[in-house]
Amino acid sequence: MSSVGDPSDPATSAILRPVDSTAPTVVDPVDSNTSSPIDKRGPLAGDPVFDLHRGGKMTVTPSVPLTSREDLSLAYTPGVARVCAAIATDPELAAEYTWVSHTVAVVTDGTAVLGLGDIGPRAAMPVMEGKAILFKQFGGVDAVPICLDTRDIDEIVSTVTALAPSFGGINLEDISAPRCFEIERRLEETLPIPVFHDDQHGTAVVVLAALRNAARLLGRKLGDLRVVVSGAGAAGVAVTRMLIAGGVDPAQTLVCDSRGIIHRGRAGLTDVKAELAAQTNAADRRGGIDEALRGADVLIGVSGGEIPATALAGMSPGGVIFALANPTP
Amino acid sequence: MSSVGDPSDPATSAILRPVDSTAPTVVDPVDSNTSSPIDKRGPLAGDPVFDLHRGGKMTVTPSVPLTSREDLSLAYTPGVARVCAAIATDPELAAEYTWVSHTVAVVTDGTAVLGLGDIGPRAAMPVMEGKAILFKQFGGVDAVPICLDTRDIDEIVSTVTALAPSFGGINLEDISAPRCFEIERRLEETLPIPVFHDDQHGTAVVVLAALRNAARLLGRKLGDLRVVVSGAGAAGVAVTRMLIAGGVDPAQTLVCDSRGIIHRGRAGLTDVKAELAAQTNAADRRGGIDEALRGADVLIGVSGGEIPATALAGMSPGGVIFALANPTP
Repeated sequence: MSSVGDPSDPATSAILRPVDSTAPTVVDPVDSNTSSPIDKRGPLAGDPVFDLHRGGKMTVTPSVPLTSREDLSLAYTPGVARVCAAIATDPELAAEYTWVSHTVAVVTDGTAVLGLGDIGPRAAMPVMEGKAILFKQFGGVDAVPICLDTRDIDEIVSTVTALAPSFGGINLEDISAPRCFEIERRLEETLPIPVFHDDQHGTAVVVLAALRNAARLLGRKLGDLRVVVSGAGAAGVAVTRMLIAGGVDPAQTLVCDSRGIIHRGRAGLTDVKAELAAQTNAADRRGGIDEALRGADVLIGVSGGEIPATALAGMSPGGVIFALANPTP
Repeated sequence: MSSVGDPSDPATSAILRPVDSTAPTVVDPVDSNTSSPIDKRGPLAGDPVFDLHRGGKMTVTPSVPLTSREDLSLAYTPGVARVCAAIATDPELAAEYTWVSHTVAVVTDGTAVLGLGDIGPRAAMPVMEGKAILFKQFGGVDAVPICLDTRDIDEIVSTVTALAPSFGGINLEDISAPRCFEIERRLEETLPIPVFHDDQHGTAVVVLAALRNAARLLGRKLGDLRVVVSGAGAAGVAVTRMLIAGGVDPAQTLVCDSRGIIHRGRAGLTDVKAELAAQTNAADRRGGIDEALRGADVLIGVSGGEIPATALAGMSPGGVIFALANPTP
């Protein structure tokens, strides 16, 4: 048999010609129960949101040339074997010679997606793709959406642990509280890479930064502000913790959930809420959001639902409102 | 507080300015035991293979615009919530409005990487990145390397099952035999998406195609050829199965492993090899590769080691040799 792959041979050039990598490939859906592929000119066509999302919002792009036989010998076999052998000898080289150190897994189980709640891993994908491209566009970090087909805490932890060598960090996303707290804690204990829960830490970081700026504008000190956090899910809990770590007075801080102000005497508190009750609300105030807001300087809104204007009217003059719940729904 | 994010506001434009997405970001290695980052001008610098691999070989690229506030409202919140809600109502829409249907996971546990053997998930990454970019460059398919930190069959199956909603197909890669056969079988039974084991099916497909062409050149029929497969790992087993399915006569086919010709009477055969023994080698031939090649028309080399010239000399005139083992090491 004659040798193959001579780059000067027109037949080889044809073999090595890349496909048009700028055009997303939309293939027929797998596991379809219908006999025909989805109608691409269906009722959603023409809607700018759906048109934008067709084929997804991201692609993988080779960052090395792959057009000649020599390119392939460097990027793939036999050249690549030398890189593998070097990493096997010195695992730290993986940070230098793979994409791992600048790549993050965006992991969800689809249980608390935006304001939509538990819509499952498949329906969560558009948000995870969105978060992945935000990482790239504004942080220069490559990110891969991983939507998990399990809600079991142990299975989520073991799955993320198993795939961790593929990534430089884990970004947990839209996992419902209080499960998210245990998942994050266990992964942080186990993994040698950073574990970040976006709904907690991402929100908390920007809230603390914004409240510092707001305090400066008002000429107030963080420790003097009476803060109300509306919502005790992942965001509300993490925001409260970080504001306190940043100098807000826990004694003057109130956290509300759908049942009202969290206080020590309330029955049925989860571990996380019991911890908040012990740390905040020194005056043991009770009641709903209107009672909480009476005389408050700051409202951090990280829950669904609406807050009546009359409740807001009870805030102190020059009060600061961060309305952070997702606008839809 | 004034509203933020007005695209006509220079401050917002600065916030929304993307980083240079063409330059791979190399960050310091995590979990380093040394006090300083790896010396990027170290002893490997200047080596063309290592220079090419610096920072890895692939990136994620947004395929939608993300430069204005309006862009973000379409690609992320609030627009994205409508796409999520639509998929939650009709899961088949995920194929049309996410990247899942054209994205493959390239999954390994690092136990049989190229000819290097069991080098673990971290050292396997350069090969998996390489395979991922081959998928993109020559197939137009997006692919994500997933290197698993477990060798346990149950854990590999449960991990891949959990992350399956994120992908349109699973490409198993460089998982050692015979574990690869069980992993592939169980995933195929469980998952609604295609499961492909590259070392098996990828190799077997091209071998059958090439042997058909070789037979045409020789003016022979597939069923008349006496075929010897050297190697009974993932590739050897799958090649043998596919050649037989494609018309090669199993009675005249011989499969050799490191202990010689596989035959019915041999002690200690794995289930997979016992199945091959029952199907092939009707004449119950025994001995080493030299005995197997006596009078053979075709040698498919998918094992390590060398075959002596004297053994090759025993093949029939016009014999066909496919030397397919990895060139390095």
